[in-house]
Amino acid sequence: MLVVGSVAYDTVDTPSGKNDHQLGGSATYFSMASSYLTDVAVVAVVGQDFDLADRAMLSDRGIDTSGLEQVAGKTFRWSGSYREDLNSAVTLETQLNVFADFAPELSEVHRESPFLFLANIDPNLQASVLAQMTRRPKLVACDTMNLWIDISRPALVSLIERVDVLLINEAEALQLTGRDGVASAAQSVLEGGLRAVVIKRGEYGAVVFHRDFTFAVPAYPLTTVVDPTGAGDSFAGGFLGYLASVDDTGADAIRRAAVVGSVMASFTVESYGLDRLRSLSASDIDARFDAFVELTRFHPLGGGQGLPVRPQFNN
Amino acid sequence: MLVVGSVAYDTVDTPSGKNDHQLGGSATYFSMASSYLTDVAVVAVVGQDFDLADRAMLSDRGIDTSGLEQVAGKTFRWSGSYREDLNSAVTLETQLNVFADFAPELSEVHRESPFLFLANIDPNLQASVLAQMTRRPKLVACDTMNLWIDISRPALVSLIERVDVLLINEAEALQLTGRDGVASAAQSVLEGGLRAVVIKRGEYGAVVFHRDFTFAVPAYPLTTVVDPTGAGDSFAGGFLGYLASVDDTGADAIRRAAVVGSVMASFTVESYGLDRLRSLSASDIDARFDAFVELTRFHPLGGGQGLPVRPQFNN
Repeated sequence: MLVVGSVAYDTVDTPSGKNDHQLGGSATYFSMASSYLTDVAVVAVVGQDFDLADRAMLSDRGIDTSGLEQVAGKTFRWSGSYREDLNSAVTLETQLNVFADFAPELSEVHRESPFLFLANIDPNLQASVLAQMTRRPKLVACDTMNLWIDISRPALVSLIERVDVLLINEAEALQLTGRDGVASAAQSVLEGGLRAVVIKRGEYGAVVFHRDFTFAVPAYPLTTVVDPTGAGDSFAGGFLGYLASVDDTGADAIRRAAVVGSVMASFTVESYGLDRLRSLSASDIDARFDAFVELTRFHPLGGGQGLPVRPQFNN
Repeated sequence: MLVVGSVAYDTVDTPSGKNDHQLGGSATYFSMASSYLTDVAVVAVVGQDFDLADRAMLSDRGIDTSGLEQVAGKTFRWSGSYREDLNSAVTLETQLNVFADFAPELSEVHRESPFLFLANIDPNLQASVLAQMTRRPKLVACDTMNLWIDISRPALVSLIERVDVLLINEAEALQLTGRDGVASAAQSVLEGGLRAVVIKRGEYGAVVFHRDFTFAVPAYPLTTVVDPTGAGDSFAGGFLGYLASVDDTGADAIRRAAVVGSVMASFTVESYGLDRLRSLSASDIDARFDAFVELTRFHPLGGGQGLPVRPQFNN
């Protein structure tokens, strides 16, 4: 699987306190989450200040970092606060640095990837990456943000019509479509032709609106959320990583993939940055998946019995 | 089952338009929703202006209206707007009218009810109703609102310690406990001794935090929500109505009850007031329940296989 996106150094301020200079970026969270499930290669750019230990951490998880280009200048920096609302970051500072001139060029090997995630970058760059693929991947998914809806709407809309799955925050889905509810927004996006829209709702979980079905998964109800940064990209990494691992994009696989996405996001928010996500064991992941089964299971009504609905009187 | 609460005439302004003088009130929505599942009696007060046709509508659904007292004066009136946010009403006007002097006196029969819902009224009145019960019901549940948290906190806290289940909106759960997340708020409430807290989250569904388990159910993703008024009380009616119908308060029953609650709430919001909720067939309810099964089901990992988690390299 291939992901194209950002690698960054973040500073976050959350109700649990402030943390400086933590490794972040959409491609980082995505690749880390998906590395537990499948082979993943990251295409991104970093500056001369990028720590060798950070590259090693990714490589040690089996992530192909051959597309992680290092150029003159500083790595992308983002600083945000969740003091007001754990569900939405207030951006305090953005230094694009080397990311300002990011123009991804894929290697021959990367152009063959059967699964592709276009993380949140300029939709023109996302389109350029898609155009570089030697053959159409089995599944292409993308994310976006309010900035691109504001300043690059035509390019974004054109891109969305060419991907299979759009993963997008609730507020941005409403902004993109001008609708006032997620079901209506998803319907509007699906009319563009893609297979599924995944609406990410932070602590409220996610809803997959697929052409053929709708599936809702809650977020894991943690008593303490330390740092929500990267939750959405970790969800995407778990979601696409699972689909790639089973090489299946059918309905049952997509439902389970959304649960795996929620599992990965739940680990990410438990600690700052990658602190928790980077150090999971297979049994951690299986246990959390089982916790989602417990969190959501109920017995359907068996044997055509139906609910004990009483007849209406005088009706 | 017995419900004590309000019967009102509401005026609502929603994105779908304005609707005047619709029958509402917590006891109305609760009893209507639960009437599909069990015998329910309503204790409330109305004024001389209360329409005979409205009483007949409740009776025709099999609801025991012998405790619906009619006194001199006008029926409680509430006017609210959802123009800004479908998830939370802005109250435009409240006329308590006869509701201001409501002092429920239960009949001998009602004092024996095995299931009791104390809808959102003054916690001192809720306590007085509970005290009138000849024997402790099998299950007592209550709701509340920000007003009582503000002005009657000690009475409310004391009441909550004596019920089995608290149903409460997310914002009010945070206000009540001073916590900043629902899981933490629920934990705090459960320390008071009750069996379960049901956090109602509007379009995001509900989470049951039970002493022994946690269960999350989404809201049904409707393309158009016409009028959210009464959704919470319809949820409560479906929830408790189901438990009463199967006479079971075990874990599996409570999980399924939360789904039935979400089913009933989903019908309520489809139309103004009781327009949809009052006219359901058994097959409507079964079909919507099945839709919740489809909305939430995924295949757990079978046969102890676990997820295809790859080993960590060099770790």
